This record gives sequence, structure tokens and C-alpha cells, in this order.
Amino acid sequence: MRIGIIGAGQLGQMLGLAAQQLGDSCRFIDPSAAPPAASAGTVIQAAFDDSAALAELAGSCDVVTYEFENVPVEALSTLTGRVPVYPPPSALRQAQDRLAEKRLFASLDIPLPAFFTVDSANDLRYAAISIGLPLVVKTRRMGYDGKGQAVLRDLQQVEAVSEQLGPSGLIAEQWIEFDYEVSAIGARNIGGEIVTYPLTRNEHVDGILRMSRAPVDDPGLTDRAGAYMRRLLEHLEYVGVLALELFVVGDRLLANEFAPRVHNSGHWTIEGTTASQFTNHLLAITNRPLLEPKLHGHAGMLNLIGDIPDAVRQLQRGHLHDYGKAARPGRKLGHITIVAASAAERDRELAEINEFVTGSTSPQGTGT
Amino acid sequence: MRIGIIGAGQLGQMLGLAAQQLGDSCRFIDPSAAPPAASAGTVIQAAFDDSAALAELAGSCDVVTYEFENVPVEALSTLTGRVPVYPPPSALRQAQDRLAEKRLFASLDIPLPAFFTVDSANDLRYAAISIGLPLVVKTRRMGYDGKGQAVLRDLQQVEAVSEQLGPSGLIAEQWIEFDYEVSAIGARNIGGEIVTYPLTRNEHVDGILRMSRAPVDDPGLTDRAGAYMRRLLEHLEYVGVLALELFVVGDRLLANEFAPRVHNSGHWTIEGTTASQFTNHLLAITNRPLLEPKLHGHAGMLNLIGDIPDAVRQLQRGHLHDYGKAARPGRKLGHITIVAASAAERDRELAEINEFVTGSTSPQGTGT
Repeated sequence: MRIGIIGAGQLGQMLGLAAQQLGDSCRFIDPSAAPPAASAGTVIQAAFDDSAALAELAGSCDVVTYEFENVPVEALSTLTGRVPVYPPPSALRQAQDRLAEKRLFASLDIPLPAFFTVDSANDLRYAAISIGLPLVVKTRRMGYDGKGQAVLRDLQQVEAVSEQLGPSGLIAEQWIEFDYEVSAIGARNIGGEIVTYPLTRNEHVDGILRMSRAPVDDPGLTDRAGAYMRRLLEHLEYVGVLALELFVVGDRLLANEFAPRVHNSGHWTIEGTTASQFTNHLLAITNRPLLEPKLHGHAGMLNLIGDIPDAVRQLQRGHLHDYGKAARPGRKLGHITIVAASAAERDRELAEINEFVTGSTSPQGTGT
Repeated sequence: MRIGIIGAGQLGQMLGLAAQQLGDSCRFIDPSAAPPAASAGTVIQAAFDDSAALAELAGSCDVVTYEFENVPVEALSTLTGRVPVYPPPSALRQAQDRLAEKRLFASLDIPLPAFFTVDSANDLRYAAISIGLPLVVKTRRMGYDGKGQAVLRDLQQVEAVSEQLGPSGLIAEQWIEFDYEVSAIGARNIGGEIVTYPLTRNEHVDGILRMSRAPVDDPGLTDRAGAYMRRLLEHLEYVGVLALELFVVGDRLLANEFAPRVHNSGHWTIEGTTASQFTNHLLAITNRPLLEPKLHGHAGMLNLIGDIPDAVRQLQRGHLHDYGKAARPGRKLGHITIVAASAAERDRELAEINEFVTGSTSPQGTGT
């Protein structure tokens, strides 16, 4: 199969590697001169919404997908009727708008933090009084890795936060004192077949994912997350991999957001399971049977952010993935995955590797 | 690292996929217009011994390797002093000549079938009388997948076999009534660090590898094969992955041949272990620490020869690798790997998949 992919970053690269193994070929659109996925297929160097580039993709591919959720939905709509686009653009549209996303969760009885739409400083003040402080304020559109967010801790800050982010097109959310964050990853193919991955526990530093661990050993949470995932996949008539991020509060799960694509918190599935999220995404969008992922053990993933020191390359532990990107503070350059026989061993190894990586990383190379 | 690879077939493709994950890039030389590895790097379309192409590789790569053993050693020698070439060309030279190979085994106290050099019909007759019939007669050079071989069952056939294969430049080997065939795969890096993979049991059909299973559950054989592998790697001051094929006769191992490269019988290491032969080959030739391969279970690999029927693509079992080659009788087009919790389950699954594949394959598509 010929797969068209909008975006040629590391997610595109990992899709491209999985594609090659399946005998599929990939063609990417990306404005960068030498994006990570260039090694895994051909790249049309163009803006994501370049109509000539999109036409070229439509004319030369059996199916088109995308590797990041800020793809302009209008660009995808120009492909309608010319080539199948998965995940469905309607799901992308809802993921791009935090308000639509939250209303979707609510309509599917998926619990979520209290929220208010905010289009003025007064709305924000009202939200703060109604929900209580602190309050998380986010732009409704185009946020990622903690960008486009602020925390309102004091009513005195209303004007400043309102000015910083908006004042309109915002959403204010209840601050959740969560125990930890998890993500659920699932895939659905064109025929409606579904597979889900075990729940992954995530740790963010400065809004950027730093570590993931799987599986989360809590059958109750796993079942609940699986049920929410199925509701989402089926309601959206979804095709491909979907990642749902949730907060854990005691035995409750509160939905934070979903991404209509393969996800950083699922990188561990490459070495940690028998069938990675990338393989299942490709199988799903080409309507081949999905592969039930079986665990190889307890997996941990550590993002390499800012730079990849030489000492880390010489580390004889785990699986190093180097995306081939230039070093830059706060940039995801690669990751290391480990798979251990027990959760305790995984946690010990991950802590040691994290300490080693942090110790080897120059201060200016760490995430901002 | 920039890896130059002579040959861009499926082995090159799988090396290229492993390289991309490590952040390495690959550049291939291959005379084909659209070889399998074209998806995994850039290809210089040229003969394997094209001096301009080799110069281009030397000028643009940190290290050069090869994916098949019929590379002209003279071509590699033009690279000497310009770029490191691994595995060492001296090992390649010995692998290319069955006589040198057998003398090497003998010199390292690695048991092997009795053999005679044959340069005339008379030599062949003498070998037949001395070793006994049947006798396996092979060209000393350039044989693969059962090509360049004949079995002498009767002294009446001496002239015919002699004429068919030679009459000179041959080798006659004792016919071994082996219980089964195995291969040992090991890697050594520039610093001398060694890792070995569990012993793999192989079944050939018409001289072409059809199935592999690992691990072979026989500690005695495994230890012996490991010792032979170490002797070979150390004596040859070898760098990269080496595959040693052996016959099992009772509790004895007799060396058949070695390949100075990644090997078809090690494809299962991609899904079956924590560190594939392809990854370790790349780590070895760039002198990075090797990864100790740990087993994910009991692995089986089935080659897809001649064609890949659509029904096989729809099979929801195992990991399909499609090399992207045009269908042709006797040609290796892909393989399926399965990993099971027990040897019995693996064997049952492999038999079922084999039956399915064989049943789905058109008669003209099967191996010759």
C-alpha cells in the first residue's frame, strides 16, 4: 500500500519504519528541508496545506493520514473524494478545539474536570469564582507540549492571564490534584475491529512528556479507560490509532484530552509489545486485520530532550531511538525504551538511566 | 553514523530499518532499479564493483559493510585505507571459497564432514571411493541457496556431475545423514565484545531456507556452537554479525559453512529478541556497545517464496515482512515471524500458517 502522511517528524519516521516492514511505502508532506521521516520515505517539501503537494499525495497514495493534530482541517477537506483520509477529519476537528473535545467527552459520559468557555476577562473571573482557584486556562486551539496554557492562582491575575492568552477563545478548567497521569491508546480499523493497549503512566516536566511506564497495574482503571476508549472510537467512527490522556484521582479517571494520531506515550509499544501502535495504525487505515498487542514485560520510555550526549549513545542499556534532529533546548530528539521482567526492575532501570541522561546532559540542553 | 552497504536486497532493507531507529543513515550500492532497501536509504545504482560508486561510498560514509557474500573482494580492497570495511575482507575471502572455509574450520578444531578438493573427474572418482557414496559435490565459489551443487549417488554419474559443475574448482563432501540443521549467529564489535544468539533450527526445501525455529532446547549443542562461534570470531578478528550453519548428528555438531553477514535464519531475532541481528551488526561495525539479546519467547520464521497471496496479507497472525519485490518462482519475497509462549504452541502455529501459505500459493508461485 502507498501511504501518504502529512508531517514528517519522528512520528512519521516511526510510521515509515513500520510501513517498510509491512511492504508499504510512505510519502510525506513537510516544510522542513531534512525532517526525521526523510529516511523512511519520500518527502514533498511544502507547507502542510499546500494544494499542489496535497494533490500530488492524493494522486500517488492509496490512503492519507497525518502525524500531528495541528494539520489544517480545511487542507484535509480538499482531499475528500479523491483519496481516503484517516483518522476521519471530523475527529481531528474536535481534537483541535478544546471546547468541542470536552463537550464530546461529556456527551459520551466520560468524566472530565469542570470547565467554562472564556471569551473575556469577565468570563475568566466568573469561571474562577464558580469553579474555584487555582484554575487552568488554555487556548481552545493549537496548544501542545504545555504551550498556550497558564495557571490562574489569584483573582488579581485575571487581567494579566486574560491578556497573555486571549482574552477570547479560551477555556478555563478546574485544577485537578491528580495522583498521576495516564494515557490509553487504541486502534480501530475500517471494518470496526478494535484493539487497545495497556494503560500507560506518564510524567511530564515543564509540560513536555518525560517518561512513560506500562502497563499500569490496576484492572479497575484499565477496564474503565478501555470502556471510554471504545465509546470514543465507535462514536467517532474512528479509523487509526487514538490516544486519550486522563488524570487518575483515587479510583476515578478524568479525561484531559485526546490526540487523533500515534502518540509519544505509545513509543514503548515498539519494543514492549508484539505489535506497535505504528503497525496497528497502518493496518487500521488500510483495513487489514489489527494485531492484538501482547506485552513483552514491563516497559519504560524516557524522552531525550534538548540533546543526546555521546555518553548516552554508549550506554549499553535499553533501545535508543535517535530521530536525527538537530539539538535544540526543549526539543524531543530521541527516546530510550527499556523492557524489564518486573515493574520494580523497570522502575529501577529507568531511574538509573534518567539519572545518567540528566547527568550527561549539558544544562543548556535540558528542556525549558 | 553514515553506513555504506554493498547490496540493497532484503537484508540491506532490514539493516536500513534498524539503522534509522539508531539515527544512522544508509547508502547502498545495487545494480537493480528498485531494490528492497531503496525504502530504507539512498541507493547508488551501479555494479557492486563499480569503482566510481565505491569511491562515492568511501567519500560519504563512516563505515562500509555488505549484505551478501558474493561481493568481489577486489572491489572491497579498493576501499582499504579510505574507509573501514567490516566484516573484514579476509573473512569474506575465506567464506567465498569452500576449501578455505573448510580448512579454517579444521584449523580451529571445529568438526566438519570429510571433504576432498576436486579438479577433475578422476579426483571426483577418487573422493567417491575414499569417502563413500552418496557424495555432495559443490563448486568452491559462488554457490548459494542450493545452486552449484549436485549429489553423486553412483560412480556411473561421475562424468556427468563433473561436467555439470566443473570439472575443476570443486569440492566433494561426505553426505551427512543429519538429524537436523542449525545455525549459530554471533556478533563481535571492534573492541572485541561478543554476543551470541540462541541456536536456530532450520528446514530447507529445494536448497532454500523455508523455516527457522529458535531457541533449540539443547544446552549441550548450544554451548558447543557458542564455543565454535567464539573461536571463529576471535580467530578472524571479526567485526559484525557472522552466521555459522551446522549439521546436528546425535549430540555432535558438524560445521557446514559460514556467512560473514546477517542471515535469513536470524530474521526471527527482530520480533523474537530484545536486540535483532541487524541492530547488533550496526552496533558492532560502528564500535558501539553490543546489546545482549534476550528472548521474547519461542520464535518461528516462515519464508514466503515465489509470491505473497492476498490471503496471507489478511492473516491476523504473526508479523508479515514484505520486501517489496516482484513475484518470481523461487524468490524470497518476504517472511512471517511468530513468537509463542511455548515451543509446542510455536510449532503448532507455524504448521498452521505454513499450511495456510502453501494452500494459498498458486502452484507456479512455489519454490523450484
